[in-house]
Amino acid sequence: MGKLLIVGSLAFDAIETPFGKTGKILGGAATFIGLAATQFRVKSAIVSVVGDDFPQSYLDLLENRDIDISGVEVVKGGKTFYWEGKYHNDLNSRDTLVTELNTLADFNPIVPDDFKNAEVVMLGNLHPNIQMSVIEQMETRPKLVILDTMNFWMNNTWDELMAVIKKIDVITINDEEARQMTEEYSLVKAAAKIQEMGPKFVVIKKGEHGALLFHDGHIFFAPALPLEEVFDPTGAGDTFAGGFSGYLAEAGNITFESMKNAIIQGSNLASFCVEKFGTERMVELQKHEVDARLVQFKELTQFNIELT
Amino acid sequence: MGKLLIVGSLAFDAIETPFGKTGKILGGAATFIGLAATQFRVKSAIVSVVGDDFPQSYLDLLENRDIDISGVEVVKGGKTFYWEGKYHNDLNSRDTLVTELNTLADFNPIVPDDFKNAEVVMLGNLHPNIQMSVIEQMETRPKLVILDTMNFWMNNTWDELMAVIKKIDVITINDEEARQMTEEYSLVKAAAKIQEMGPKFVVIKKGEHGALLFHDGHIFFAPALPLEEVFDPTGAGDTFAGGFSGYLAEAGNITFESMKNAIIQGSNLASFCVEKFGTERMVELQKHEVDARLVQFKELTQFNIELT
Repeated sequence: MGKLLIVGSLAFDAIETPFGKTGKILGGAATFIGLAATQFRVKSAIVSVVGDDFPQSYLDLLENRDIDISGVEVVKGGKTFYWEGKYHNDLNSRDTLVTELNTLADFNPIVPDDFKNAEVVMLGNLHPNIQMSVIEQMETRPKLVILDTMNFWMNNTWDELMAVIKKIDVITINDEEARQMTEEYSLVKAAAKIQEMGPKFVVIKKGEHGALLFHDGHIFFAPALPLEEVFDPTGAGDTFAGGFSGYLAEAGNITFESMKNAIIQGSNLASFCVEKFGTERMVELQKHEVDARLVQFKELTQFNIELT
Repeated sequence: MGKLLIVGSLAFDAIETPFGKTGKILGGAATFIGLAATQFRVKSAIVSVVGDDFPQSYLDLLENRDIDISGVEVVKGGKTFYWEGKYHNDLNSRDTLVTELNTLADFNPIVPDDFKNAEVVMLGNLHPNIQMSVIEQMETRPKLVILDTMNFWMNNTWDELMAVIKKIDVITINDEEARQMTEEYSLVKAAAKIQEMGPKFVVIKKGEHGALLFHDGHIFFAPALPLEEVFDPTGAGDTFAGGFSGYLAEAGNITFESMKNAIIQGSNLASFCVEKFGTERMVELQKHEVDARLVQFKELTQFNIELT
């Protein structure tokens, strides 16, 4: 069974969408990545930090799903990372109302010994120095290091980001960020420039418009499944990353073909995430539901034109 | 060989993009539809109207490609429909600077006798009464009537649009227009509502984000081919419609499966259209280029996940 090391935030989220408003609920990149990865036969661990305000029940929820949380530091007297956001009516954009880094501000990640030989490392959206520290703690070079980032790090820690990007295999990034990073409007050109910065594989996430995989002149595309209703997009990108990395950790072989499947698996799981608030849909998700929706993905995209 | 009847504008376009500016060049929905359809084994005819300012060379260009233009009325002393537009830097939106309907304002379409039994009718974006007049002139019920429309007709001729929509099989419409037409943000819900208005098949065009086909609870999606550079989007939607209708006129059988292929063929041809100004790319397009790009479309979208 492949090992997947996940580094990212565990958080409180408070979310408002046109459909309603939550209090402080479980959130964070590592949470969504970890929950998505439980859909695959992998041994996964989360490296993160929380305050002692983080409920034991949230940690239990992860541990009960066989996610190793020995790398989650609980800071006595500390407060957990908190994010509050409000989505616009079209759910395509949102305003961040509150970001309190709290314990995440001084996060010093410690990789558990048992995961220093993980085959796949998923570096969630964090300060690039934290991402780098995790890479440096690995005892064997992972088969695959995947990094997620965002415009905040481009604006504030460009050099550090460039340093860590040189050491990874796959970057996941959204379309606007890819454009900002390269000053290219065309995503084809942007992806080519990013590949020159280090990662051999570039995944560009376009939200409701799907995701693109670029590698060595090849392109693969997966749509987002068209849904009757998107209820709450929070965590969809991280769920995508969790499905992507979880599938590859299970598959073991890293080829363009297996990575195509990983993109589909990630898109498939993300389509569930958005159906309810926060992690609600992901914690109840059953394998037969995942499989049924994969059939829908095939119907949505597969065709048979005979080429003459 | 199937017959395809095309109704739509022949026009002068003047286009400005970030890459340059044209004088008055050949444009119009019927032009793009007709040129795209020449990639298939079909007998096609254009019903349209122009002024006598429309160059004979433009008519020759169509006729030399075996498009029947006996249904193109040339109004003595009349002026041809003229459109002038300027694209924004991202090429995703544009401002219409000039629209002169000219001879199109009093267009009374006359279907040539030889095409009153056409298997496929492609009604380009025009006043719904003109579209209705064409349907009424058909001597046999076509296998497939496809209608394109836009927000202008929704705003100004809603009742007439609803009347013609009841009589057609397929509507092609863009995402914003589908939302406006139904007051539903979700495209899944919007497509369901539009199907209740008449057309059994709904094609929602999302520009650079691809196209969706809805029918009876089934959904198919085709991405736009990611390009290094989009040069001029003018005519891409009509080229899509020409590929879609041309393929179905050649195929003859109207099933969800054949319509999936039609969506791919339309998307494929549209990817060429945007590579140069106006019709420039479409008039030089070779079959081997079309076939090669269909292979790219397969690589872009086809995957092989074994479902357990």
